[in-house]
Amino acid sequence: MEIAFLLYDGFTALDAVGPYEVLSRLPGAEVKFVAVESGPKTTETHSLSMVADYSLDEVTEPEILVVPGGFGTRRLLEDQELMDWLRAAHEKTTWTTSVCTGSLLLGAAGILEGLRATSHWAVIDRLADFGAIPTRERVVEEGKVVTAAGVSSGIDMGLRLAERIGGEDLAKGIQLGIEYDPDPPFDAGSPDTAPPHIVELLKSLLEQAEANAQAETA
Amino acid sequence: MEIAFLLYDGFTALDAVGPYEVLSRLPGAEVKFVAVESGPKTTETHSLSMVADYSLDEVTEPEILVVPGGFGTRRLLEDQELMDWLRAAHEKTTWTTSVCTGSLLLGAAGILEGLRATSHWAVIDRLADFGAIPTRERVVEEGKVVTAAGVSSGIDMGLRLAERIGGEDLAKGIQLGIEYDPDPPFDAGSPDTAPPHIVELLKSLLEQAEANAQAETA
Repeated sequence: MEIAFLLYDGFTALDAVGPYEVLSRLPGAEVKFVAVESGPKTTETHSLSMVADYSLDEVTEPEILVVPGGFGTRRLLEDQELMDWLRAAHEKTTWTTSVCTGSLLLGAAGILEGLRATSHWAVIDRLADFGAIPTRERVVEEGKVVTAAGVSSGIDMGLRLAERIGGEDLAKGIQLGIEYDPDPPFDAGSPDTAPPHIVELLKSLLEQAEANAQAETA
Repeated sequence: MEIAFLLYDGFTALDAVGPYEVLSRLPGAEVKFVAVESGPKTTETHSLSMVADYSLDEVTEPEILVVPGGFGTRRLLEDQELMDWLRAAHEKTTWTTSVCTGSLLLGAAGILEGLRATSHWAVIDRLADFGAIPTRERVVEEGKVVTAAGVSSGIDMGLRLAERIGGEDLAKGIQLGIEYDPDPPFDAGSPDTAPPHIVELLKSLLEQAEANAQAETA
């Protein structure tokens, strides 16, 4: 079972590695990290590189496609080579998935039109620009299109997919293998539960980061 | 603030990337991925490479040291160059930390002697071989030595460290930034809650993997 993870400069590491750590444990998983051009791709902070061993033309029919998010998505929204690849891959996939702002790329490729979909809480409204129905849930399934909320939600998405693909016992076994018995020290992982002054602070920080990302693109 | 993440062939990606995604967001964080020899290091399944930009001699006084786990730890337990580096780095750190079987490496370096410590649930008893006191908690703090349980627990550890370093608001802000509002589909992430037949199955799979890892080392 070929599982393709898209990489690009400016991706968020946990967006990719959360579902990777789950899905790579599926029996028969053949994981391929793919990018417009193969080679090392750096995270938003430039402090970590993960290697895309494959370029787009080397991975054409993945069964599962995972598109992580990150500020680097913004400069890819009009990359026609990538958009064509996403559309063509999506035609053949069993599952087309995204984490965080990876859903903006699926949206820009036209894959989310008319579908309920999610993204990072701070940018979810932008999905409407692509004809999607922004849906504030941690994992949103619409047929074979599965979108997950911000960054860490890809672990939950991976486990749900593992259940769909291999059944409940397999998913539970993977959960136990990665000892996913989360115990966050605070109940601050959602704008609904975090203190309002922290939500406001994060919004302004993310807006600044967004402006920086757009300035880099321009 | 220099934060060093150890990499080696056969590491578990989420062990490193969970705390990375939290700690790299600390103000002033300067993250360095380090290995005995710099270059790409592959995960246990060989399907993902992350790049160690630095060799051991280039990173000598990290403020925070993070040692991820993975089956690759087994062949490093008697690597004297690495053990010397761990001991020397630990003397200067503000925090010395591990995720999953990374604690076996801290143990082999003599850093856990007499300390309560944790590891992946399936191997935690081995910590006693290094004079540590195996402690089944998700995150165990003993002064500046902080060990976390299996794989995904590094996210929780990262947030606890973020609180110690920058206070509660900062930790909550990072938690909100990575939308860490976990919602696992099952309550199977601990051997205490997973169905017994799945715990037994995992134990036998992990024993097999352990045997394979030791055969590779021999």
